[in-house]
Amino acid sequence: MAERVRVGVIGASGYTGYELLRVLVAHPAVEISVATSEQYAGQQVAELFPSLARLLDLTLSPLLEEGLEERCDTVFLALPHKTAMRAAVRFLAAGKRVIDLSADFRLRDAQTYEAWYGAAHEARSWLARAVYGLPERYRSAIKEAQLVANPGCYPTSAILPLAPLLSEGLLVPESIIVDALSGVSGAGRKLEAQYLYGEAAESVKAYGVPRHRHTPEIEQELSVAAGVPVTITFTPHLLPMTRGMLSTIYAQPRLPLSASQFREVLAKAYGEEPFVRLCAAGRLPEARHVRGSNFCDIGVEVDSRTGRLILISALDNLVKGASGQAVQNFNLMHGLAETLALRTPGLAL
Amino acid sequence: MAERVRVGVIGASGYTGYELLRVLVAHPAVEISVATSEQYAGQQVAELFPSLARLLDLTLSPLLEEGLEERCDTVFLALPHKTAMRAAVRFLAAGKRVIDLSADFRLRDAQTYEAWYGAAHEARSWLARAVYGLPERYRSAIKEAQLVANPGCYPTSAILPLAPLLSEGLLVPESIIVDALSGVSGAGRKLEAQYLYGEAAESVKAYGVPRHRHTPEIEQELSVAAGVPVTITFTPHLLPMTRGMLSTIYAQPRLPLSASQFREVLAKAYGEEPFVRLCAAGRLPEARHVRGSNFCDIGVEVDSRTGRLILISALDNLVKGASGQAVQNFNLMHGLAETLALRTPGLAL
Amino acid sequence: MAERVRVGVIGASGYTGYELLRVLVAHPAVEISVATSEQYAGQQVAELFPSLARLLDLTLSPLLEEGLEERCDTVFLALPHKTAMRAAVRFLAAGKRVIDLSADFRLRDAQTYEAWYGAAHEARSWLARAVYGLPERYRSAIKEAQLVANPGCYPTSAILPLAPLLSEGLLVPESIIVDALSGVSGAGRKLEAQYLYGEAAESVKAYGVPRHRHTPEIEQELSVAAGVPVTITFTPHLLPMTRGMLSTIYAQPRLPLSASQFREVLAKAYGEEPFVRLCAAGRLPEARHVRGSNFCDIGVEVDSRTGRLILISALDNLVKGASGQAVQNFNLMHGLAETLALRTPGLAL
Amino acid sequence: MAERVRVGVIGASGYTGYELLRVLVAHPAVEISVATSEQYAGQQVAELFPSLARLLDLTLSPLLEEGLEERCDTVFLALPHKTAMRAAVRFLAAGKRVIDLSADFRLRDAQTYEAWYGAAHEARSWLARAVYGLPERYRSAIKEAQLVANPGCYPTSAILPLAPLLSEGLLVPESIIVDALSGVSGAGRKLEAQYLYGEAAESVKAYGVPRHRHTPEIEQELSVAAGVPVTITFTPHLLPMTRGMLSTIYAQPRLPLSASQFREVLAKAYGEEPFVRLCAAGRLPEARHVRGSNFCDIGVEVDSRTGRLILISALDNLVKGASGQAVQNFNLMHGLAETLALRTPGLAL
Repeated sequence: MAERVRVGVIGASGYTGYELLRVLVAHPAVEISVATSEQYAGQQVAELFPSLARLLDLTLSPLLEEGLEERCDTVFLALPHKTAMRAAVRFLAAGKRVIDLSADFRLRDAQTYEAWYGAAHEARSWLARAVYGLPERYRSAIKEAQLVANPGCYPTSAILPLAPLLSEGLLVPESIIVDALSGVSGAGRKLEAQYLYGEAAESVKAYGVPRHRHTPEIEQELSVAAGVPVTITFTPHLLPMTRGMLSTIYAQPRLPLSASQFREVLAKAYGEEPFVRLCAAGRLPEARHVRGSNFCDIGVEVDSRTGRLILISALDNLVKGASGQAVQNFNLMHGLAETLALRTPGLAL
Repeated sequence: MAERVRVGVIGASGYTGYELLRVLVAHPAVEISVATSEQYAGQQVAELFPSLARLLDLTLSPLLEEGLEERCDTVFLALPHKTAMRAAVRFLAAGKRVIDLSADFRLRDAQTYEAWYGAAHEARSWLARAVYGLPERYRSAIKEAQLVANPGCYPTSAILPLAPLLSEGLLVPESIIVDALSGVSGAGRKLEAQYLYGEAAESVKAYGVPRHRHTPEIEQELSVAAGVPVTITFTPHLLPMTRGMLSTIYAQPRLPLSASQFREVLAKAYGEEPFVRLCAAGRLPEARHVRGSNFCDIGVEVDSRTGRLILISALDNLVKGASGQAVQNFNLMHGLAETLALRTPGLAL
Repeated sequence: MAERVRVGVIGASGYTGYELLRVLVAHPAVEISVATSEQYAGQQVAELFPSLARLLDLTLSPLLEEGLEERCDTVFLALPHKTAMRAAVRFLAAGKRVIDLSADFRLRDAQTYEAWYGAAHEARSWLARAVYGLPERYRSAIKEAQLVANPGCYPTSAILPLAPLLSEGLLVPESIIVDALSGVSGAGRKLEAQYLYGEAAESVKAYGVPRHRHTPEIEQELSVAAGVPVTITFTPHLLPMTRGMLSTIYAQPRLPLSASQFREVLAKAYGEEPFVRLCAAGRLPEARHVRGSNFCDIGVEVDSRTGRLILISALDNLVKGASGQAVQNFNLMHGLAETLALRTPGLAL
Repeated sequence: MAERVRVGVIGASGYTGYELLRVLVAHPAVEISVATSEQYAGQQVAELFPSLARLLDLTLSPLLEEGLEERCDTVFLALPHKTAMRAAVRFLAAGKRVIDLSADFRLRDAQTYEAWYGAAHEARSWLARAVYGLPERYRSAIKEAQLVANPGCYPTSAILPLAPLLSEGLLVPESIIVDALSGVSGAGRKLEAQYLYGEAAESVKAYGVPRHRHTPEIEQELSVAAGVPVTITFTPHLLPMTRGMLSTIYAQPRLPLSASQFREVLAKAYGEEPFVRLCAAGRLPEARHVRGSNFCDIGVEVDSRTGRLILISALDNLVKGASGQAVQNFNLMHGLAETLALRTPGLAL
């Protein structure tokens, strides 16, 4: 085998950071050469994550450690937004390739970013060069990119089922509602009472209604697909599960197509895609079937009584919704088989 | 205190049957005189439900035991549909009052019943006399009724937030989407693999799309409220929690009202209601706050970018969605304080 | 009814504080006149706990608010240890009766307290007057007490099954192992990563091995019962459930008695107890059957192959293990029916 | 790469059957050529397990299908006991190698089997030739075996921490108590009410006390290690989690060694083992760190107050406790790297 790519996981102590390590540690073309954490710098990775004992022998570095850049070829940024932006510039300037899991380079329009994230964009020149890292939409650009903006979990779950149908002009753009259900890990390792076991278990609530920050990201990509501006209603919910995301999407078709006709359009778009699976007629996706895996499963129904199209997508928010997709992008950027280290089935149980 | 009402819980071994016993055992005006179960007949109730040990000393009877009617004044039917219909006729004919928790007397139109439930309606004359047991809508009729059709859990969660707004003509009738999330207990004690812990935990799926049987029940009551036929899209989901239901409802307003204007309409409708609580601006309901209680909490937002109204309701599917509401109806039927045995807060933890 | 007792819940914003409010709000002889919280002072209780909306209209006070003492007759302290000690002195000095849910007055020996809690005991004179609030052991003293030290959850679950057997001299004192399983709420509302949903769900771990602070409390009461010093091994575990505690206890009998002989001894001790239930032969307790209730269920088996006695107890750590037991003590202290507001069955589902 | 081994998964529709498929589908030296199910024969595997869509293209066969033997080189039996025995004979007679995940060949003494399983042993001659498939104890015999009896989950979790200490004569044999906690998947896909989400979630109970069938299996292997008969007390508990097992083991040391001395003995035994990890001082294992992985993590403490040794082991009951260990055995039997397809970290989240 060719030499392994030396990768850095910047911000390794959070949930997507861990998930990157979990996937990369079994990646045959990767050497994890750097992992950073401010809080745990100096500790062994396996002290922080006992699941990695015997599998990864690496000491956590602080982000600002000198020479970090020289020790890796490509970096994954699993940092909070704003912090990510600055780290990206540093590694990009050093000629490294960067896959940023934060929101900092996802919105093409800096003003939209500033309006929704309440922060100035400090790397506008790089913004223009960032590629939105959804392989099913931008595969060839990703291969060449120096900077990939890895999509959000909600956006991935909404864009994958909708984009091909909007591209074909099959849906009324202003009719789209995305009702999405997420596992608690979507909030990261945030120490807030609402994420404590006792307050999240055996309950459910909507949040961020009606202005969740993933809204403009979804709208941006749906608008690209549709060729016209698309404005959606997006309602995320917090579910009592650790991983997983299920989005139920409602849209009014322009023409009264059947569920199987819609399925065909999606089958044409995704028939060759390694990580998008279409459910057969009469089947709908379940979060457990993609748990721990990089798949996005999509189900299609039409409510014949009202004419509404109902799309349901399931993915693991930490894998296809974050770190798995990042590795998929990495594979593309390095000319590797796209599925390397990712062809594992969902845990199911 | 006046003499206690002797009540029978017919079909005591299922989940709503247990929940009736749980609430009634602490009811100061009730004597539970009969509890039936075919499978466990002859056993003590507390053998089947150890949580009732020391609290209820009663032997389970088979439904067909002779003289059962004479031993109770009012019966709750917690039976599967069809079976309920027949039991209802028996107790009604004996002059008893009946609160039926099944779907058998909820749909006023026997043909609609037969189309959605795939079974002939064998008690059409009683159907005409049944009162839909939603106290917030039919309180005075319930007081006089001999037969109350206790609403379904999904219908309760959809009708309560929507009906006052439809009555005022504020919503476009054909714009309504009910996206609902239910705990696993909604399926009852059904022995199917999908309800096993290992297959329901840490997952979520939609089901019954696009033709769940609660659809016509919701539509019936929304149409009554609106004064015109209302057809909805209804998508139920199975969540990894035992109790609880959260419905997120989308509708297009006829006029561009603000969230607080919608809240005012609901406050006028429900300000005096003991079991409907409106969330203040900026708050949304959570399932845990109503767990184990008879409350239905309602939150209201308007998505100003799309003009859509978003209503969110939370209730415990076994309490306000079934057995608690049945006891509320019972209290009304017997001229008791409506909140008797029901004024307990949600478990929250 | 006679005038209601005005009670204060000091430290209302934590889990046991909430649980006190949940039970007391439905207590017919109580008026909740004070609830304190430093963090949320000035807010309505129902803003903090939406489950109490419509049921409790009270503003949270800071603990140091002047005149607080005058507004209540009896106070429950749901404060961290050390803080509780000081608050207790204040209310006791004002002639109030105090039920302290912390560990501050449970250990009769101040030195033991200081050794295990690493803090000086600042109220030794009151320590001597505190009554250990386990009604099944100290009922008559509790009735007269001004200061009740409400037992810990683990101690309650260990002492109830063991004490009568030790009193009768049936067990080898040095043979006792308490292997206990607790829901996450036992840790309170502590913001630590280990209690986040994502890190507590679908997992289990032992903690505090081999020196958990409840050890000396258990040993103190077992020694009293045995009449000789008892030293135990105690291993608590953190389980993926919110409420509930199951203790599996191993002991070597002095004489080879059968399970039913041990059951008889316990039946004699607890036959009249309203909140201790003995499982019949062949049945073992389950946490769900006591969830939300004040019961402690106890099962007894003998491993005939090794001669070991196996006792299993189940209780709700927030109810019989904390706030429910506190209300039981309150009832006793005020000459009320011991079961007032507490005679509700476990949620079971 | 050399030709792939054609393997059959006999009894593919249960939980350990699925888990075999999940691991084997990513195994580079395996071709899954046969999967059987009586109930689902004729269906595609991916219809039954949507998580395997795109990864496995295979139709389920009935066990009795003619010629099944010819289509595979080695078979995994994931069948109920008794059924497994008969299937084993069939494949063994055809010269195939067999890894049996049932209990049928684990107990060397047919009479013990018959006493605990209540069934005649119909393959005694094969019993004598079966190798107990715990690689850490029987690696070289496994390599040569035609029939491997794959250990139970509880036995694996008890034998791994105890055996080296018993071999060294460090423990009092009659002092051992194994208190074990298992996820619900340990019961398989059994349709019983106790395994429904609503009855298993947020609860815990002991079961099979005091005579669980894994007892003689644990005792057999501990006796081999100790060189004297070992009789234990074993108490399994059902926990609200899908996967995972944590065993807390109590034993009296013969000599008063420290925790670190015990750790050293285990380190010597397992230092080179790929799937046994010893926790450092002050750390204890957690189920989540091994979830979905083939590791067994072991922690060691000594209760200096009582002298008791406390061993805690964590593993995934479906992986190291069943199917992963079976694949580890398979690798050994076929001269492959022992860790092939198994070197993945626990899911942790």
